[in-house]
Amino acid sequence: MVPHLITALSGPINELEARVLESMPAIERWFRLEWMEHTPPFYTSVDLRNAGFKLAPVDTNLFPGGFNNLTLEMLPLAVQAAMAAIEKICPEAKNLLLIPEAHTRNTYYLSNVQRLVQIFTQAGLNVRLGTLDEEIKSPSRLALPDGSELTLEPLLRTRGRLGLKDFDPCTILLNNDLSAGIPPVLENLHQQYLLPPLHAGWAVRRKSRHFQSYEEVAKKFAKLLGMDPWLINPLYGQCGQVDFDEATGLECVQGHVETLLAKIRRKYKEYGIGEKPFVVVKADNGTYGMGIMTVHDPKELDDLNRRTRNKMSVVKDGQPVSEVIIQEGVPTYERVNGAVAEPVVYMIDRYVVGGFYRVHAERGVDENLNAPGSGFVPLAFAESHQLPRPGAKPGASAPNRFYMYGVIGRLAMLAAAYELEATDPEAEIYE
Amino acid sequence: MVPHLITALSGPINELEARVLESMPAIERWFRLEWMEHTPPFYTSVDLRNAGFKLAPVDTNLFPGGFNNLTLEMLPLAVQAAMAAIEKICPEAKNLLLIPEAHTRNTYYLSNVQRLVQIFTQAGLNVRLGTLDEEIKSPSRLALPDGSELTLEPLLRTRGRLGLKDFDPCTILLNNDLSAGIPPVLENLHQQYLLPPLHAGWAVRRKSRHFQSYEEVAKKFAKLLGMDPWLINPLYGQCGQVDFDEATGLECVQGHVETLLAKIRRKYKEYGIGEKPFVVVKADNGTYGMGIMTVHDPKELDDLNRRTRNKMSVVKDGQPVSEVIIQEGVPTYERVNGAVAEPVVYMIDRYVVGGFYRVHAERGVDENLNAPGSGFVPLAFAESHQLPRPGAKPGASAPNRFYMYGVIGRLAMLAAAYELEATDPEAEIYE
Repeated sequence: MVPHLITALSGPINELEARVLESMPAIERWFRLEWMEHTPPFYTSVDLRNAGFKLAPVDTNLFPGGFNNLTLEMLPLAVQAAMAAIEKICPEAKNLLLIPEAHTRNTYYLSNVQRLVQIFTQAGLNVRLGTLDEEIKSPSRLALPDGSELTLEPLLRTRGRLGLKDFDPCTILLNNDLSAGIPPVLENLHQQYLLPPLHAGWAVRRKSRHFQSYEEVAKKFAKLLGMDPWLINPLYGQCGQVDFDEATGLECVQGHVETLLAKIRRKYKEYGIGEKPFVVVKADNGTYGMGIMTVHDPKELDDLNRRTRNKMSVVKDGQPVSEVIIQEGVPTYERVNGAVAEPVVYMIDRYVVGGFYRVHAERGVDENLNAPGSGFVPLAFAESHQLPRPGAKPGASAPNRFYMYGVIGRLAMLAAAYELEATDPEAEIYE
Repeated sequence: MVPHLITALSGPINELEARVLESMPAIERWFRLEWMEHTPPFYTSVDLRNAGFKLAPVDTNLFPGGFNNLTLEMLPLAVQAAMAAIEKICPEAKNLLLIPEAHTRNTYYLSNVQRLVQIFTQAGLNVRLGTLDEEIKSPSRLALPDGSELTLEPLLRTRGRLGLKDFDPCTILLNNDLSAGIPPVLENLHQQYLLPPLHAGWAVRRKSRHFQSYEEVAKKFAKLLGMDPWLINPLYGQCGQVDFDEATGLECVQGHVETLLAKIRRKYKEYGIGEKPFVVVKADNGTYGMGIMTVHDPKELDDLNRRTRNKMSVVKDGQPVSEVIIQEGVPTYERVNGAVAEPVVYMIDRYVVGGFYRVHAERGVDENLNAPGSGFVPLAFAESHQLPRPGAKPGASAPNRFYMYGVIGRLAMLAAAYELEATDPEAEIYE
């Protein structure tokens, strides 16, 4: 189930949405069976794009920030899901060590950390913060906008365990996506649960590998509902030897752009969609909305200006980009107060715990919204008269449009579960 | 964790409350470990009495009605808990058969059934209603106050399974407390999950057996917190051969009343409580607030008037009373709009999903409130500024007083788990 949040959509529900809503029992059962075979990531946020004719995930974050953008009414739901997660992993746990991003005093991010501390404290754990910042040698306080503060403490590593002074956790929760690489202090922690696992970090993870798993999941799901998987699956290609700075390896990118645009054009024709196809080129290990460009024509890559080349050549923590994913662009046709908006769905364990709209007043429907100037609009719970009520007369209750976002969000989360199993360096191989 | 609801209490938190609040991580861990060994009942509601100096459960219902008295904001929490429950019991389930009370057209009760249908539908199941009323031979519609309707269908029993026409459920959920006895149609269903089990019904269950288990749980919990178990445990006695109609067997009741009053007096003295002790005599298998009387002096039983004898001699579905529990009376010092109030806590699986106050303007602090004339006041979620925030300055966030109710409610639920294990007629015995 998915909480009923008020979406920005207000038109009639389309065919895809109607099919998802009427198949709810079959969909929930399918998820239950998938979770018997696969372990959900500890927590996940998924950026969605809703074009009306197509609804697809465009990014799946396994170290989600932004929990502070969920409404406080969602907190009990997050806490209950956190309790379920902890029960499975480490029921005897007393302590949780949370490792946030290092080197940031961004108060939005710190408010996210504060919210995570609140969620896991209310789930019944002693929560303390350890930092990967080696400059921090003693407990260090950071002020928050609401007048409260967070204390970051230096990590203490022994042979087999990681902790803080007088603090030995059962579980270590990373809210640091490891873009800068895997710090040795986190390696070989076989006596504790380190979640998400190291290979979920951007030092190892690749978006293209995720979308390979997502394609598999989308095909299974589409078969269940008897529909074309393309309606929920963004097409993609991948290039491994690109240097935007030196403008080398771009032929590979151009080739994929051309192929993808042709495929999208065919699909648009098949469905009678009068849109101009576009693709999005992204760093294959990028995050924070860095290293992303929209392309409508392969020729645009012939003569990239300096600004674009710079933008595309490094991502977070100054990591150079050499691998890129070329992904079908899905326009977003949702708007909040006139600004282009995309929904973001938050999950803890297998449960949807909330969502919000990322909005950007200065961006177009075919552009990345995760950029300076973006804002967040929390999705409120629907009022009681808007809740779907079985047995109610037609029209007496509104459909839960957020349900579909919760379904697609969970499909992306399931894909991440497939992905992490397939890429686990310590997986045992049975042949 | 327990959602933060606004309680009617507003005074300073007392010592017991303070100890429970500061021990949250230890308490939650203790519950996690208990749930590793014991299976929670499918759903539970617990009536509490808060005397300030003492907080105790006075009734634990394993077939809770009144889900419609929870605020709609709690619905997602209930649905998430229902999903967790279903996942454990029968993940492959498509269908849930819900069996409500028979012979009732009480619209309050039917609204409860409607809410349960809503919860399990949103958890992703096809839900239909089967009735134990043998007069109903074909699908029969019942109108609800909001204009919607429920359809009751006759049960179809085959050798091994129970269902409805074209409806074969994995799980059968009883919302019928079986006061009238165990119907043969529910016996020997070894191929399906029947929840709660038959021995949880009032045909078999005894309050005194429940409070025997509760005493065990309360002692364990009190040891964890280093406190006197009496602060959360109502003392009790039991008599097995009572006939109020013929006024026989009352010596046993009087004896227990006398012993209990003496014990309570000692405890009041120990804690400097200036209250007048009282006990409550209840049918040991009673429910719906029937068969209950308050006694301040054993002499009151010498000369019971006809009205009281009648009241005490039969309970729901006309079942005669021969066994009674004599329980320490816990005054309730909560008031909503001036009326005496007692909190009721609702749980699904191991999770607290909401609560409300049962209020009765014409009853005293030492009387049963579950009586004609009572009303319900849903507990709203606390506003964001009232949420406890770790790291916030003292006084900047209010304590979650509802937390303690959630803890005591869960202790009673855990006691029901112990009780159902101990009374399971099909339990294997290892010696």
